[in-house]
Amino acid sequence: MAIEDSNHLFLRACLRQPVNRTPVWIMRQAGRYLPEYRQVRAQAGDFLALCKNPELATTVTLQPVERFGRFGLDAAILFSDILVIPEAMGQNLRFSTGEGPLLEPPLTRAAEIEKLRRPDPETDLGFVMQAVDEIRRILNDRVPLIGFSGSPWTLATYMVEGGSSKTFSRIKGMLYDAPDTLHRLQDRLVDCVADYLNAQIRHGAQAVQIFDTWGGVLSPRDFREFSLTPMARIVERLDRIGSDGQRVPVILFAKGCGAFLEEMASTGCDVLGIDWTTDLGKARRRVGVSTALQGNMDPALLYASEDRIRQEVRELLEAFGPHPGHIFNLGHGMAPDMDPDRLAILLTAVAEESSRIHRDTKS
Amino acid sequence: MAIEDSNHLFLRACLRQPVNRTPVWIMRQAGRYLPEYRQVRAQAGDFLALCKNPELATTVTLQPVERFGRFGLDAAILFSDILVIPEAMGQNLRFSTGEGPLLEPPLTRAAEIEKLRRPDPETDLGFVMQAVDEIRRILNDRVPLIGFSGSPWTLATYMVEGGSSKTFSRIKGMLYDAPDTLHRLQDRLVDCVADYLNAQIRHGAQAVQIFDTWGGVLSPRDFREFSLTPMARIVERLDRIGSDGQRVPVILFAKGCGAFLEEMASTGCDVLGIDWTTDLGKARRRVGVSTALQGNMDPALLYASEDRIRQEVRELLEAFGPHPGHIFNLGHGMAPDMDPDRLAILLTAVAEESSRIHRDTKS
Repeated sequence: MAIEDSNHLFLRACLRQPVNRTPVWIMRQAGRYLPEYRQVRAQAGDFLALCKNPELATTVTLQPVERFGRFGLDAAILFSDILVIPEAMGQNLRFSTGEGPLLEPPLTRAAEIEKLRRPDPETDLGFVMQAVDEIRRILNDRVPLIGFSGSPWTLATYMVEGGSSKTFSRIKGMLYDAPDTLHRLQDRLVDCVADYLNAQIRHGAQAVQIFDTWGGVLSPRDFREFSLTPMARIVERLDRIGSDGQRVPVILFAKGCGAFLEEMASTGCDVLGIDWTTDLGKARRRVGVSTALQGNMDPALLYASEDRIRQEVRELLEAFGPHPGHIFNLGHGMAPDMDPDRLAILLTAVAEESSRIHRDTKS
Repeated sequence: MAIEDSNHLFLRACLRQPVNRTPVWIMRQAGRYLPEYRQVRAQAGDFLALCKNPELATTVTLQPVERFGRFGLDAAILFSDILVIPEAMGQNLRFSTGEGPLLEPPLTRAAEIEKLRRPDPETDLGFVMQAVDEIRRILNDRVPLIGFSGSPWTLATYMVEGGSSKTFSRIKGMLYDAPDTLHRLQDRLVDCVADYLNAQIRHGAQAVQIFDTWGGVLSPRDFREFSLTPMARIVERLDRIGSDGQRVPVILFAKGCGAFLEEMASTGCDVLGIDWTTDLGKARRRVGVSTALQGNMDPALLYASEDRIRQEVRELLEAFGPHPGHIFNLGHGMAPDMDPDRLAILLTAVAEESSRIHRDTKS
């Protein structure tokens, strides 16, 4: 199958091809900050029911793309939850108000890990694959679709803690006292995440992002062993040619892990997502031309005024410079109390300011 | 006044003088993980009443020193709360179960900031000074006493948010849209924190630590302007000779800010506290011999077995090497669900392993 260059700005930037403006998408762009999302969510009942309803998941995936229109978002991202994998492996998942996600029972012993299933994404996670099919059909190539998964370390924290945690006492207890048990769990997760992302790619995901939300709670030694290495094994196993014969970029995003950009780049991923605690210009110089960068505006700038948002967008674009390989994004996801109109300001500013920078560079 | 070398291992290590074993203290060593603390806390009624009762504050400050005995903790740290400063400046402080601290009303406008008072630590925070007097008297020079304060940035986050925050929407809104207002608040806080720490030093604190708990939520540019610069101004203004004519080391601890160690060292502080997400050996090579380092074991190792704790202590001590200028500590505070007996194991391991390393180096 021949690999053709894409017309999509987002995919071009991921592959460090020239663009005439900087593409942008926003983590958690489909979510609670949108009134139209809250309406569908209420209709679905609970959050998990929404994730498992391909029709409604399609609707909310497309909402931000439709709301912000042309020169809005340059990619859609599948609406789902990272914890559908642990559920498909055999844990009980529910979302309780106030407490967040609960995975029951928490995995504490090797015997429980041995009992976990390796899901078949086509059947056990069929609702995700149906959503991917349907989103691609309705998008009709307007913008590309990004698929995603949690990283093995991040998924393992929820599976072993039984949900969210402040102290990570159970998973750290396992990491320090039973590292072989944790490795065994991560071996399983590497298989499941690779299967899951490859299925998304087969169904039409045009890029995939691995979210390592909790890599930042590890020491450098433990990050390498328990977060980075399993991610690298997944990157190696991903199908890099998509259903339409185009290259499928792989994005790694590890929050709070700016110290490890060079090592993350060496996994062979195409794009590194970075948060706002790392300087974008320095990150580009550190990583060089090998890898594109995605990010990294402080999400809290969406609490600021129009002028300040525009100024920050300009400064970030200038810090990256007129090189290929930048995808604009926040350094973390949208918060529920953010105003969609401020996001509209940001998107317009990225389009206008980056067009100017790319034009000035050419002339 | 002549400055004499101290006999205290902790003070010697802070000033990078030779020691025959590595001194150790533990952030939040006086606190809820200790049953004897929970008893006094119940007696005091609420948390704030405990902070404001010099006799009970003295009792809980001394509890861990007494519990772990000889070759236990090499310093005591004043039991108090960082939010007594905002309260003395004029905000209403209370601790509500579940919600954490509340400072009312939240500071949102310049006019409110102008109305804040500059407290006289001797009277407005007299309960802290009485506790310092009393702790020194009872300690009778057994181990040195560390005083502390929150950093201006960290205090400002609570004052503007009105308590804890997940999104920091109000303070970030101020930072981005009204930076002059935030600077004005921080000018006030620089005065108050410097006054407060100098009063602690006059009353007998033999070292002081500035905690920047929330520096890690800022971009590098904003960390420099809104967290580091105010801390540097405080360091400049501190009395570095204590009530007994000895040098008073200043410790800066900014959680999640391992990227800025060199810049933090250049404030002129004596010691940098580092968390476990930074490699201790690399930190030492980065900072060189100019500044001592304090840290940095992952607190979650206290959920692990005796053998694993010992192994980690050994590895950390070896990573630092047989150089002067290391104070052993966790990379963050004790959590309420931790077991005091595991801490005892850690303290013994630090004494034994570091004695061996220092002995081997001499011979």
